[in-house]
Amino acid sequence: MARTQGSHSDITGPRVREAALRLFAENGYAAVSMRQIAGEVGVQAGALYNYTPDKQSLLFDLMKGHMDDLLRAWAAQSVPETPQMALEQFTRFHIRFHHDRPEAVFVSYMELRNLTPENFEVIEGLRRRYENQLEAILRRGVAAGVFDVADPKIAAMAVIAMLTGVNTWYREEGRLSLPEVEQIYWSMVRKAVSA
Amino acid sequence: MARTQGSHSDITGPRVREAALRLFAENGYAAVSMRQIAGEVGVQAGALYNYTPDKQSLLFDLMKGHMDDLLRAWAAQSVPETPQMALEQFTRFHIRFHHDRPEAVFVSYMELRNLTPENFEVIEGLRRRYENQLEAILRRGVAAGVFDVADPKIAAMAVIAMLTGVNTWYREEGRLSLPEVEQIYWSMVRKAVSA
Repeated sequence: MARTQGSHSDITGPRVREAALRLFAENGYAAVSMRQIAGEVGVQAGALYNYTPDKQSLLFDLMKGHMDDLLRAWAAQSVPETPQMALEQFTRFHIRFHHDRPEAVFVSYMELRNLTPENFEVIEGLRRRYENQLEAILRRGVAAGVFDVADPKIAAMAVIAMLTGVNTWYREEGRLSLPEVEQIYWSMVRKAVSA
Repeated sequence: MARTQGSHSDITGPRVREAALRLFAENGYAAVSMRQIAGEVGVQAGALYNYTPDKQSLLFDLMKGHMDDLLRAWAAQSVPETPQMALEQFTRFHIRFHHDRPEAVFVSYMELRNLTPENFEVIEGLRRRYENQLEAILRRGVAAGVFDVADPKIAAMAVIAMLTGVNTWYREEGRLSLPEVEQIYWSMVRKAVSA
C-alpha cells in the first residue's frame, strides 16, 4: 500500500537524526528550527513532534548516540597484550572512528554549551568514560615501566585532542592517505609517552 | 557635555566587538541578530550600522583581529638560541595566549563555516602563517639533528591541536596551576618530536 508523504510511519528515527545532524552542523543548533528539520525530512512540523518532544531531546539523542557508538566500537576491539600495542590500537581507532563522522564530532564538541545541565552531565560522563580507557592504558604502561607520563589523566586528554585534530585538516584528496596519517600520529604519540 | 545614550560617539569599536564576541560564543553566529548586538552595546540597531556594514564584517573583524593579535604577540617574543628552546617557548606561549582568550578561540574555530569564501581565505592564510612558525622550528630541529619528525607540517598541526585542547578542560579552580599544565605539555611535546 502506498504511503502518503508526511504520514507518521515515514518519520523513522534515523532520517530525523540525519536531517538534524546535517542542519546543526551547517547552521548551529540555535539557528535551526523544528520546522526546518521537518522540511528536510519532508514532513509537516507537527508530525515531527510525534517522534521527538523537542529540539533539545534531538540534540541530546545525537550526542548520546555518538558517544554510545564510540564506546561500543571501542569495546568491540580485541584486547592487545602490551600497553604499547593497546596505545597504538587506541591511536588508530580514534583517528578512524572520528574521521568517519566529521559532522557528529563537530556538533558534539560545539554544541555542549546548548545542552541542559542534566543532559550535559550525561554526555560529560560518557566522554569521561572514553577518556578513562586511554588513561587506563597509560597507567598500565607506567606501571610496567614502558611509559613515562607525569599525569595520565592530562596525558589522555592531550593525546585525544591531538588525534581529534586530524578532522580539522585532513582531506581525502590531500597528499597523505589516512593510514599514512595514522602512522605519523602513532609515531608522535608513542614517543610523547615513552619512558 | 553629557552624551545621550545611543549617540554615535558611544559606539566604540572595542565595545561592539566585545558584545558580538560574547553573543557569538554563547549562541553561535547564525542565531545572533544585529539588533541583539546593538541591545548588548546599549544602542539602537540603526546606530550599529554606522560602525559596521553587516554581521559578516563583524565576524571577520573578530577572527582577523584574533589572528593578528596572535601573530603580533608571537613576533614580539625574543628569539631563542636552540630549536629545543624555541619549541619550549612556542608551547608555553600557545597555551598561555589561548588560555587568556577562550571565547575568541572558540568562535575562531567554530565559525569558520560561516565566513564568506573570500573572508575564509584570509583567515586560513593567517592560520597557516602561524602554523608555519612552528613548522619552521621543527624543520630547524630536524636539520640540526635534534628532532625527528616524518612530516613537519603535520607535526605542527598535531602539536597545535594538542595545545589548544587545554582550553576545553582547564579550569582555574582545578588541581593544577597553568604553569604546571605547561610543564606537562612541554614534556610531551619535547618527547613527541625528539630524535
